[in-house]
Amino acid sequence: MNLDATKAYAVLKKIDPNTISLKRLLTLARIEAYSIPAGGGLTYNYAAKRVTDRVLNVLQRLARERKLIAQFEALYNGAVANPGEGRMVLHHLTRGQLGRDVLHQGKNLRSFYAQQQKKIAAFCRQVHSGKIKGSTGKPFTTVVQIGIGGSDLGPRALYLALEQYARERGRLRMEARFISNVDPDDANGVLRDVDLERTLFILVSKSGTTQETLANERLVKAKMAKAGIKGMNPDRHMIAVTSETSPLAQSSEYVRAFFMDDFIGGRYSSTSAVGGAILSLAFGPQVFEQILAGAHEADELACEPDIRKNAALMDALIGVWERNFLKYPSTAVLPYSQALLRFPAHLQQLDMESNGKSVNRDNRRLAYATGPLVFGEPGTNGQHSFYQLLHQGTDIIPLQFIGFRKGQTRFDLKVEGSTSQQKLGANLAAQILAFAEGKQDPNRNKTFEGGRPSSLLHGEQLTPAALGALLAHFENKVMFQGFLWNINSFDQEGVQLGKVLTKEVLRGPKDERLIAYARLLGV
Amino acid sequence: MNLDATKAYAVLKKIDPNTISLKRLLTLARIEAYSIPAGGGLTYNYAAKRVTDRVLNVLQRLARERKLIAQFEALYNGAVANPGEGRMVLHHLTRGQLGRDVLHQGKNLRSFYAQQQKKIAAFCRQVHSGKIKGSTGKPFTTVVQIGIGGSDLGPRALYLALEQYARERGRLRMEARFISNVDPDDANGVLRDVDLERTLFILVSKSGTTQETLANERLVKAKMAKAGIKGMNPDRHMIAVTSETSPLAQSSEYVRAFFMDDFIGGRYSSTSAVGGAILSLAFGPQVFEQILAGAHEADELACEPDIRKNAALMDALIGVWERNFLKYPSTAVLPYSQALLRFPAHLQQLDMESNGKSVNRDNRRLAYATGPLVFGEPGTNGQHSFYQLLHQGTDIIPLQFIGFRKGQTRFDLKVEGSTSQQKLGANLAAQILAFAEGKQDPNRNKTFEGGRPSSLLHGEQLTPAALGALLAHFENKVMFQGFLWNINSFDQEGVQLGKVLTKEVLRGPKDERLIAYARLLGV
Repeated sequence: MNLDATKAYAVLKKIDPNTISLKRLLTLARIEAYSIPAGGGLTYNYAAKRVTDRVLNVLQRLARERKLIAQFEALYNGAVANPGEGRMVLHHLTRGQLGRDVLHQGKNLRSFYAQQQKKIAAFCRQVHSGKIKGSTGKPFTTVVQIGIGGSDLGPRALYLALEQYARERGRLRMEARFISNVDPDDANGVLRDVDLERTLFILVSKSGTTQETLANERLVKAKMAKAGIKGMNPDRHMIAVTSETSPLAQSSEYVRAFFMDDFIGGRYSSTSAVGGAILSLAFGPQVFEQILAGAHEADELACEPDIRKNAALMDALIGVWERNFLKYPSTAVLPYSQALLRFPAHLQQLDMESNGKSVNRDNRRLAYATGPLVFGEPGTNGQHSFYQLLHQGTDIIPLQFIGFRKGQTRFDLKVEGSTSQQKLGANLAAQILAFAEGKQDPNRNKTFEGGRPSSLLHGEQLTPAALGALLAHFENKVMFQGFLWNINSFDQEGVQLGKVLTKEVLRGPKDERLIAYARLLGV
Repeated sequence: MNLDATKAYAVLKKIDPNTISLKRLLTLARIEAYSIPAGGGLTYNYAAKRVTDRVLNVLQRLARERKLIAQFEALYNGAVANPGEGRMVLHHLTRGQLGRDVLHQGKNLRSFYAQQQKKIAAFCRQVHSGKIKGSTGKPFTTVVQIGIGGSDLGPRALYLALEQYARERGRLRMEARFISNVDPDDANGVLRDVDLERTLFILVSKSGTTQETLANERLVKAKMAKAGIKGMNPDRHMIAVTSETSPLAQSSEYVRAFFMDDFIGGRYSSTSAVGGAILSLAFGPQVFEQILAGAHEADELACEPDIRKNAALMDALIGVWERNFLKYPSTAVLPYSQALLRFPAHLQQLDMESNGKSVNRDNRRLAYATGPLVFGEPGTNGQHSFYQLLHQGTDIIPLQFIGFRKGQTRFDLKVEGSTSQQKLGANLAAQILAFAEGKQDPNRNKTFEGGRPSSLLHGEQLTPAALGALLAHFENKVMFQGFLWNINSFDQEGVQLGKVLTKEVLRGPKDERLIAYARLLGV
């Protein structure tokens, strides 16, 4: 059923947004009450969202009407939730069992994912202990992931999120780097920085056919071969993460192969072997298990039918309210944590690739807006950049703040009466109120209209468990929104045409316009 | 005069966008003809924009009606182009003389900026030759910029844009790092990586009062003092870039101080001492001079009144057409060059902080939309992330592609008949056509509507001169759009309220809601 065919939609349509003033809504009582546990020690606070209790009640009815929790149950119990590709959607099982056993060709898939993680953990112990070494006899100290899209953004965001946390505790086992872009400047830059003899590469491609990733693999191996290091055997410096049916799976060119399968979409694969290999190598398998535990906790919380007790569901519903009724076309993710510097880029893929769709699950064109534009940078950096437009621009952009009471590193200093960590938190608190409340001034240029809604995900510290919960919170939010819009959040047909035309350009295109553009670009 | 008071606006309003089909417009002849030199060897191609010749003719009239070139001339000749702060706007003079001498209190400002650059160059030579050393007698090999907003994003984007270029040629004189966020995890992470004895810090703050930057300075100095290195004197490891009137200017706590002034806005300061110090230290003063030469060339091209010969002006006008008549609220910057990975973040500040305004230059509220949301990531990475929404989402987002015929590094490999660089270019050519043309399919989920407009800035290679031109192109585009919208693109009153409330939180706030949020965040 499409969103605009629901009874709740008709009710929401009748509510005049102009009657809802965020300035009047934002009270102390609301800040204290509008709060939901989100897993991993995180809490989702939606006091500064432009929703009345009446709106929330209708959103609750909408959740029931669209059977969102039942849809989620069906998904994790193995329904074909990705109809376009005829696939189940099982990333939740990479971190725990939510419902029944899910079997495929007689194989229990939760067991399969858990088994891969165990194999990765065993491999890590051999690498960390020096039992598995590079081809010239030196221990591995650096790990480089070669992958693009979901094989890059999520794992990279998670690695960066915990790099200082691990260093501070002396627990960074291996330094990680990433090669993604087909631009050879990317691989050449990374290869210049690493000690090839001590570097283990992870080739990540589910299909084993990703153009960029295979080109980068060959580039890396060619450079290793050309480095003139005696005894260097590039094959002994590379493992593969792929599906069991891919051409890479049985190749002898890899030290090991670890597997995911077609039921784990790229942008949902951080908790599978795609994230598991690099994060376990970098931080040790235990830290990766903590990430999984946090994610699983958030998944369990997402099973709750009461929207006031289900952070991901509430977040999803408010997002749809903002997109389809308040007509806000974009949303910003603003983590007040330097460690989350690439988390917005991961969410950008997660959300925009999942819900940037125009047809419903029956391939019928929709008459309403779906997934928003998602962007963001860490605070306080963004305050000195694009916040001017957020505060005083002509469009309203809803905001998702993320903040922690403690940093990941210990060294801090009081300057003018407060530590840097206190300044960070104070800035975030101030921004929420500034955006919601605004400020009148006789000088119109110094006037802030306010009425800019935001929510806040907050916790004690960005630990592995908090990070896992954060990841799962947004995965589940995006999933619920897909259910609401009645779209398939798990395919990506929109990337196909570019692939086809790229091959045409490389083969020698017939279209004279393609020829002209190719010539401008030296192809 | 406001945009909606012009005659051209009324004419444009009468054009029905539905009559303009990009699919029909995009011909070979247009790709060949709709091309403008943009400086530094770059060319701006707007064949795939949704503009007819009729629209272009009216935009030309609009340019004349709003006297855009005369406004630009007045600006670089020293008019008070930033009325809110009563300041001139002179960043063009940091890279060359465009018009008359501009004097302030008897001082020729072009000479002042050039003299600062000469002083920086002389200082660099002393650092590079080892004449100026760290306090423990070791030569400086790393430079760390401490700054936020315009003191961070532009210089960082430019450094990353040329890092591999310089390395490839053996011309990276010093490695550069950046500390920006007040989150202490940022500074602690950078300090963990560098050899303090060999590190020179640059403190960058025009006013000398930026909260984040001063907190980070103190944190850095405290950590150096605590490192227990015999003979370590933190003051001998830091230079300042500031205005002559700031408290930092005369302090003895810095090895040297270099100056800009109030006529150089933060987001326009990359070609002043703000970018000059770190880029000259990293790459040598000659490379920085090449950046300036490229920027100056683009500035000179921006003086041309014929919009078909002025890339920045054309880009600006088409952007206004897209924002106010086609009603597209955002725009993506998509460089097919890994080196430009942070260039979109710089443009995000440049554009959104300049033109995210709701009042005109007389502080009257505007009835039309101004600056769009700007975001982006390098291609091909973005193709595996948010392009799904760009191709098949319910909103249209205009695209700004950037591409080069050659990479910055030499090592490349043919895989399946093409090099990685050729694949990169082929992907970009394919995307332009895919977005414009789309593709029909019996399966609606595999249908691409097309009609997604894009432009292409292309060149031979991302050299220092090309980079300078790229920087200036967008600065001038944003400036012309500010003129068109009749807004002040050079102030940023929207950042003030947050600063005021942050101080309130740190002093002990009275507002119970601020207290509540501060408590959630551990302040």
